[in-house]
Amino acid sequence: MAKGITRRSEDYSRWYTDVIRVAELAEHSVVKGCMVIRPWGYAIWERIRDALDAMIKETGHVNAYFPLLIPESLLAREAEHVEGFSPECAVVTHGGGKKLAEPLYVRPTSEAVICSTYARWMESWRDLPILVNQWANVVRWEMRTRLFLRTTEFLWQEGHTAHETAGEAREEVARMLDVYRRLAEEWLAMPVRAGVKSASERFAGAEETWAIEAMMQDRRALQAGTSHFLGQNFAKAYDMKFQGRSGDLEYAWSTSWGVSTRLVGGLVMSHSDDRGLVLPPRLAPLQAVIVPIYRSDERRSEVMGKAAEIGRALEDAGIRSRVDDRDHVKPGAKFFEWEKKGVPVRLEIGPRDLDAGQAVVVRRDLGKESKETASLEAVPGRIGELLDRMQDDLFRRARERLETHTHEVEEYADLAGILNGELGFVKAPWCGNPACEEKVKEETTATIRVIEEAERDHPGRCVVCGRDSRLRPIFARAY
Amino acid sequence: MAKGITRRSEDYSRWYTDVIRVAELAEHSVVKGCMVIRPWGYAIWERIRDALDAMIKETGHVNAYFPLLIPESLLAREAEHVEGFSPECAVVTHGGGKKLAEPLYVRPTSEAVICSTYARWMESWRDLPILVNQWANVVRWEMRTRLFLRTTEFLWQEGHTAHETAGEAREEVARMLDVYRRLAEEWLAMPVRAGVKSASERFAGAEETWAIEAMMQDRRALQAGTSHFLGQNFAKAYDMKFQGRSGDLEYAWSTSWGVSTRLVGGLVMSHSDDRGLVLPPRLAPLQAVIVPIYRSDERRSEVMGKAAEIGRALEDAGIRSRVDDRDHVKPGAKFFEWEKKGVPVRLEIGPRDLDAGQAVVVRRDLGKESKETASLEAVPGRIGELLDRMQDDLFRRARERLETHTHEVEEYADLAGILNGELGFVKAPWCGNPACEEKVKEETTATIRVIEEAERDHPGRCVVCGRDSRLRPIFARAY
Repeated sequence: MAKGITRRSEDYSRWYTDVIRVAELAEHSVVKGCMVIRPWGYAIWERIRDALDAMIKETGHVNAYFPLLIPESLLAREAEHVEGFSPECAVVTHGGGKKLAEPLYVRPTSEAVICSTYARWMESWRDLPILVNQWANVVRWEMRTRLFLRTTEFLWQEGHTAHETAGEAREEVARMLDVYRRLAEEWLAMPVRAGVKSASERFAGAEETWAIEAMMQDRRALQAGTSHFLGQNFAKAYDMKFQGRSGDLEYAWSTSWGVSTRLVGGLVMSHSDDRGLVLPPRLAPLQAVIVPIYRSDERRSEVMGKAAEIGRALEDAGIRSRVDDRDHVKPGAKFFEWEKKGVPVRLEIGPRDLDAGQAVVVRRDLGKESKETASLEAVPGRIGELLDRMQDDLFRRARERLETHTHEVEEYADLAGILNGELGFVKAPWCGNPACEEKVKEETTATIRVIEEAERDHPGRCVVCGRDSRLRPIFARAY
Repeated sequence: MAKGITRRSEDYSRWYTDVIRVAELAEHSVVKGCMVIRPWGYAIWERIRDALDAMIKETGHVNAYFPLLIPESLLAREAEHVEGFSPECAVVTHGGGKKLAEPLYVRPTSEAVICSTYARWMESWRDLPILVNQWANVVRWEMRTRLFLRTTEFLWQEGHTAHETAGEAREEVARMLDVYRRLAEEWLAMPVRAGVKSASERFAGAEETWAIEAMMQDRRALQAGTSHFLGQNFAKAYDMKFQGRSGDLEYAWSTSWGVSTRLVGGLVMSHSDDRGLVLPPRLAPLQAVIVPIYRSDERRSEVMGKAAEIGRALEDAGIRSRVDDRDHVKPGAKFFEWEKKGVPVRLEIGPRDLDAGQAVVVRRDLGKESKETASLEAVPGRIGELLDRMQDDLFRRARERLETHTHEVEEYADLAGILNGELGFVKAPWCGNPACEEKVKEETTATIRVIEEAERDHPGRCVVCGRDSRLRPIFARAY
């Protein structure tokens, strides 16, 4: 066992917090339920953010910024929305040394303030669609928190769009769900199942909530992103009206969609091992670390010089790298440190390597067994190959896990057996009755994660009540 | 006068809000004192942020994120700090439907929460320096707000560093002040005067506050960035101790520094004119807009095709551009719209230009008089030149204004005459007595903006009391 890390097989939950601690990703703060995102954790979030921001812009959206504080009366205009969110809000009652005439909620999400602003921006159908995204912090009062996965304050992006027709809004919901799927799969190497939520798991105020769900190494589900079709609910509550093509005033159709720093938690639980964090190369803030090895001062400057030269060659090849040139830390300690932090490739170079014109290269995910030597000229090319392969391998392994642990059952006993046993995703027929869904939850703590598009008209008999069913949701225990 | 814009000569303050409105940079929200930063305004902020973020990283800093909410008792540990900030805080008293045991302040700045975290991160001198920056929103209750310049919530970055020695901390303060100067001058084309603040204008809890001050077109000062030497004040309050080289426990020396969305306001007031916003090309989200001109449908597709081709050529040349291909808006209306939004270069192309193999190019700051034709092959190169020149010209004009309206005086009557008259920066001898500073403020509403490095030992007689003085601060009325 690596120092300070509980084995996964022993206690998965402690392993998770240990990895976050030793990799210096985040820590609890003095403020209950709020975390400090440490530089290494924040650098990963920055890379996720930049990748997603580019995709959001490529699909025609622009960024903007809306106020943090929302008057109680404004939030209250959409009945289901306020009912869902107000119990988990932080409330500002005093400002500038005085009691406020009206309490202000710290935003738990921004539909209220954004929709009421859009109402001012739209006059005619020519002003639509409005396609805006915001990167922001939000606060939701949480009783039981867990670093990254569930914290009182978290960072996220929230897209909010308004459209002329229901069809366009639905297309937007699907488009952004697919952007999230690509972000998860292509960047985080985290395969997901996409689909629609059941009514009980819907966003407060939405007509439909779509989501992507990933499977962690302990075979629990993690909701990794949501995309909501809001119908005309918020348009009616916040007066989003425009003059339509016919000349009549019409209500807009709106959507919202978001992912958060929770993704960093998903990343940790998808790929890391008992030695610490494992980072997908595309997201790693550092892709390769170069550790110079020398015993005496004699050949130090020679080794350091070559290490720096390799570092420059890697940068030229577009590989994010660093030479760990700290004199007071021994090479072995450096190996462990970067291993814990998940840097995809380690390169070692000492006097003997120098003489042989080569360097030693090790992949983080495969460890010692992947150790190989590469001639110095070939190093940048070889590391580039290893990074690509590692990205693919992480995704492939995670997908194998997802596939192996996705079961299709017809009988309740099988469903309950898996959900109370080895866990995983269980697809089973469901009649659509919330009572049947609730029974599964009571007896297994599992919930319906999503109903995939292809499983929305798949005839069968409800696994709970035996009545005719057309839906086959994925049931799982979730974070 | 452009439609909807008050002339500067008529009412400078209304002109400012008009430009922000017609350029669609920001607007007041339903939340008192808080603004909505609209997409065009936010795109400018994104470019400022990206430029500064790169400079912050180049100087060895990393980003992280700390909690929004700060317990009252934590803020209270540094006496001057809490005294300065608590009267302007928004206070959360309820969370999750219950009254909190202890009120939480929405951060007005993050020294308290960051320093108490650093205390856990430092054990020995080897853990120093800690060089961390945060991009975040902060809230300070403001009675009189003005878009971008003074809002209850604003976006900013706040750097917080901890060092082994006072000397290193002072170097850091100077380094970051210079980064801010470069950001202002090289990106915003906004020349500044840098120096130290007088005690009355110091950050609450700091030993020294350094700042850069720009001069707006109405000759008022705008504080554009601050860098604080905090001495060991916060280290003592938040227990930032480490084992020094001698083996003894020592208190760290700390700094903090920040710039905010206020810079966007400074940008507007530095360069814009009676026709709307003028953007420095390096910061403009769009550097060139291409307006296709056609009367009949006959040659529409031909003109559009060529416009698109030019657009691609500009993108290839690294110029941020867009073809305005809206059919329902007339070319003249497009001209006005992009002029109001400050896009540096407009390119017009119609059937006759097409036949002649050329396009018409106009610079935003110079208007009609700069109209010229360029052959189509030469367009990308020519626009590149115009953008460079415009960046230089905006800076040069702003610097001329700053120099022309900086006066050196020895007599009080001259000081008061300028500060109650034409305005500007007035350098005058000051004995260092706060009573003399206060008298100037009472009689002119002007304050000491900064004392430049070279004016900290410049003998004279205090302009107020006539006693010997060594300081020559810059006095000005400020935003």
